[in-house]
Amino acid sequence: MTRRRQIYEGKAKILYEGPEPGTLIQYFKDDATAFNAQKKGTINGKGVINNRISEYVFTRLAHIGIPTHFIRRLNMREQLIRQVEIVPIEVIVRNVAAGSICTRLGLEEGQPLPHTLIEYCYKDDALGDPLVAEEHIACFGWATQEEMQDISSMAIRINDFMCGMFAAIGIRLIDFKLEFGRQFDGDFSRIILADEISPDGCRLWDIETGEKLDKDRFRRDLGGEVEAYQEVARRLGLLNEGGE
Amino acid sequence: MTRRRQIYEGKAKILYEGPEPGTLIQYFKDDATAFNAQKKGTINGKGVINNRISEYVFTRLAHIGIPTHFIRRLNMREQLIRQVEIVPIEVIVRNVAAGSICTRLGLEEGQPLPHTLIEYCYKDDALGDPLVAEEHIACFGWATQEEMQDISSMAIRINDFMCGMFAAIGIRLIDFKLEFGRQFDGDFSRIILADEISPDGCRLWDIETGEKLDKDRFRRDLGGEVEAYQEVARRLGLLNEGGE
Ligand SMILES: Nc1ncnc2c1ncn2[C@@H]1O[C@H](COP(=O)(O)OP(=O)(O)O)[C@@H](O)[C@H]1O
Ligand SMILES: Nc1ncnc2c1ncn2[C@@H]1O[C@H](COP(=O)(O)OP(=O)(O)O)[C@@H](O)[C@H]1O
Ligand SMILES: [Mg+2]
Ligand SMILES: [Mg+2]
Repeated sequence: MTRRRQIYEGKAKILYEGPEPGTLIQYFKDDATAFNAQKKGTINGKGVINNRISEYVFTRLAHIGIPTHFIRRLNMREQLIRQVEIVPIEVIVRNVAAGSICTRLGLEEGQPLPHTLIEYCYKDDALGDPLVAEEHIACFGWATQEEMQDISSMAIRINDFMCGMFAAIGIRLIDFKLEFGRQFDGDFSRIILADEISPDGCRLWDIETGEKLDKDRFRRDLGGEVEAYQEVARRLGLLNEGGE
Repeated sequence: MTRRRQIYEGKAKILYEGPEPGTLIQYFKDDATAFNAQKKGTINGKGVINNRISEYVFTRLAHIGIPTHFIRRLNMREQLIRQVEIVPIEVIVRNVAAGSICTRLGLEEGQPLPHTLIEYCYKDDALGDPLVAEEHIACFGWATQEEMQDISSMAIRINDFMCGMFAAIGIRLIDFKLEFGRQFDGDFSRIILADEISPDGCRLWDIETGEKLDKDRFRRDLGGEVEAYQEVARRLGLLNEGGE
């Protein structure tokens, strides 16, 4: 492999310059962090699984017409993606109360929400990714109202698709996080789905047992995180493929 | 005065049953609290001043067509109001960054916001009045979308009016808090402005000196809170009226 310029190293992934202008290589690490990186660790093989799951989900989302940054998987830990300007908003889609919303609003974990709830957090580690409203996003110009319209309608479609996909393999989609970005074409830009979709950013509970198959195993020291990530990949039919 | 039934005692006011159905008496105390009532104290004469200032502002808001709960002032510390079902949302209108938004979003106090920002907090002392978005309000049914439309457009008009009113007396309106309620008429209800508007829930800075003329003097132990409240009343022409 030739030497590549590293663009950015984040908590879970590294971005390298891609082979063509407007492309990047996204490398998935095994590093795990929680609570705004106050807790750090490693989940063995997580990068390999997340690369594969994210490929799977992004590919199928493209089939239903969601534009994404995903171009193709390159190897076990890397995928080729379209470079975007990330919208600095974490989009959280919640079907069932879990995690931060429980303490914030006094809800019980596992309580289904009256209806699906979209939350926006300003992506800023130093501030702890604070919750914001559309008013803040407009006021500080983090995204235009048209962009937020695209983002929220895509988020709802992605949720519907993923609820179905996970239901089919005995998993309840509790909540998940999305990131979007601007893909430029001359003076124009459009919003596309970026980053990753994997058990790192989803809460996934076994429909029968309620067992957690996601990063909460790491966050809450439940153990068995490697097995949980593998189980999600296995149910999606991604484990016994004989990779390359 | 005849004995009246007390309906509610809050941090700054007491509500009594009113003389007619659908009315209440709002009694203004001198009690002051801050930081979700972790800090408590007294500001001598505050209740008298706030009753008078709130009467002044609500009366003038009615003149520009904002429906309010205010009927008339009864005496130094009491006013007759229409009973409403309070919408459990604190509406915060911000023109300049100050207070909680500064730490939350990393802004400098005194920095003008790119444009006026409306924030909503869920009114729940036990949860510390957490910031919420319109999505939460809809999800948990705290107000309908039509009600939020009325609330936000009234909040913007009230801000414009109050900016002008305070500018005329050398005061910069930094931010303020509003509460709204539902007034019922048979099966119908409409949203009206409730609670109070006073230096307890506004940030008011002298235009020339930047001096704080509001509850931040108490919150931050700056001293001179009585004088600050009196100064606002004096500039509004409310001090040397010879009350009753
Ligand atoms: N298509 C893309 N183009 C540019 N940046 C991207 C793209 N997809 C994701 N990113 C950004 O790359 C980083 C991925 O690495 P990650 O470890 O998740 O970082 P972080 O710790 O900032 O969350 C994130 O900051 C994410 O916003
Ligand atoms: N017109 C009204 N009808 C019914 N309740 C009202 C009306 N106006 C204000 N309130 C409520 O009365 C209380 C006023 O007392 P306050 O000391 O401010 O209480 P709190 O500590 O709950 O903020 C508040 O809870 C407010 O929501
Ligand atoms: Mg990330
Ligand atoms: Mg109050």
